[in-house]
Amino acid sequence: MHPTTTIVLLGAGNVADRLGRRLLQSGCRIRQVYNRTPAPGTALAEDLQASFTSRLEAVDRDADLYLLALSDSAIGPVARELCSYLPARALVAHTSGAVPSSVLTPYFSRSGVFYPLQTFTRGRAVDFSDIPMCVFAGNPDDEARLLQLAARLSRSVHRIDDRQRAILHVAAVFVNNFTNHLFHIGHSILGEENLPFDLLRPLIRETAAKVQTGPPAAMQTGPAIRNDAETIGRHLQYLEQFPDYRRVYDVLTESIGKVGKT
Amino acid sequence: MHPTTTIVLLGAGNVADRLGRRLLQSGCRIRQVYNRTPAPGTALAEDLQASFTSRLEAVDRDADLYLLALSDSAIGPVARELCSYLPARALVAHTSGAVPSSVLTPYFSRSGVFYPLQTFTRGRAVDFSDIPMCVFAGNPDDEARLLQLAARLSRSVHRIDDRQRAILHVAAVFVNNFTNHLFHIGHSILGEENLPFDLLRPLIRETAAKVQTGPPAAMQTGPAIRNDAETIGRHLQYLEQFPDYRRVYDVLTESIGKVGKT
Repeated sequence: MHPTTTIVLLGAGNVADRLGRRLLQSGCRIRQVYNRTPAPGTALAEDLQASFTSRLEAVDRDADLYLLALSDSAIGPVARELCSYLPARALVAHTSGAVPSSVLTPYFSRSGVFYPLQTFTRGRAVDFSDIPMCVFAGNPDDEARLLQLAARLSRSVHRIDDRQRAILHVAAVFVNNFTNHLFHIGHSILGEENLPFDLLRPLIRETAAKVQTGPPAAMQTGPAIRNDAETIGRHLQYLEQFPDYRRVYDVLTESIGKVGKT
Repeated sequence: MHPTTTIVLLGAGNVADRLGRRLLQSGCRIRQVYNRTPAPGTALAEDLQASFTSRLEAVDRDADLYLLALSDSAIGPVARELCSYLPARALVAHTSGAVPSSVLTPYFSRSGVFYPLQTFTRGRAVDFSDIPMCVFAGNPDDEARLLQLAARLSRSVHRIDDRQRAILHVAAVFVNNFTNHLFHIGHSILGEENLPFDLLRPLIRETAAKVQTGPPAAMQTGPAIRNDAETIGRHLQYLEQFPDYRRVYDVLTESIGKVGKT
């Protein structure tokens, strides 16, 4: 795409917010923001120096790219409605890790995926330059365009097909959603005893830092990998008051034990 | 303790290594390193400008502190043997999160715990200044001494009794051992598909960074907390080839769902 790619951004959630700001910063023009509910949409549009609409029929018709940064369940329905308002040559991409590209192909002859593999939180600045941009398009020209655009946002650009992206998304659930839940369990156990979560924060930082250079299996420590039945027994006894956490403890301890054996 | 506290360090594993270096750096004198197997012990002793012994009967008798940085299972047996060689006034502390202080009290009138709540890897420098130092001793004078020593190593010094330390240790298993295992599962799934683990590393960094300021529950995203049955169903289907990972997925998804409901 030429330097001043013009984009219509559909959505005003965390992904739309962070991606929109980064696109603007990298020299794109966000022509318009669409969002079903006006409140967050108008605010984001203002920040992105874009116009705003809450009606798909009012979406600008001649942008270089329509970026569907919507919730997974909204992508299909919005695509279905949007296609009747856009010219046949419109290039449309969604930003989801979980939704196959085929959800767009019935509606658009030029479509693809533009998925930043990261967790976004409103108001939290992230360093976009190392976020893996996972790009796919139905035809090579569009894919080249999207790869080029991705390279303006990040040093880490990858061609990832639907199958690969689905696998990445499962893995991301393990290392992000599930990991965060383990942090929550730690927070919750400490809270019960009036111990501050700050006691665990340096450990959490170091746990993530350690796997930045090596494979996680090489970093594993603790009672499960040592098969230290005495410590595990004491932990399980303590966790009897939290049956749900005890189940998590059981399953993960068993799973770690299997790594030790292979 | 006075500025040039003299210490005998028992052990030459990761904790002994990192703690020994930090103690030396903070102005302590490591008089001697004891280790059952000479090879790692002599190397560490040399680095710490200390003498070395592999025999408990040859342990120096007039250090200010005997620090048992040993594996959990070695602390009791070493303490039992060591006590016959030390004078009655010797102050002895272990560095374990999992072992109660009472393992030392039968053998020493002055004993305690000096537990750095962090994961240590040989050759990996850690910023000791923010590691929570969890200190306990059987009598107030010794506790004051150990707290003072801890304050020379870290800004984060805490009086933590046996019950609290046991709870911290359980929580540490969740946020470190189990988290690292989830990283391993991500690594393993990607490896099966020849996708590089580097694709997940920025996400892992950000997952840990996000909980440094807020509570983890507020950061939770993904299909489990949204109760997105369609995505969960796709993930479970993919994971059928990895029954062990599927079980982990099931239990954590269920556990996250319970947070959503409370």
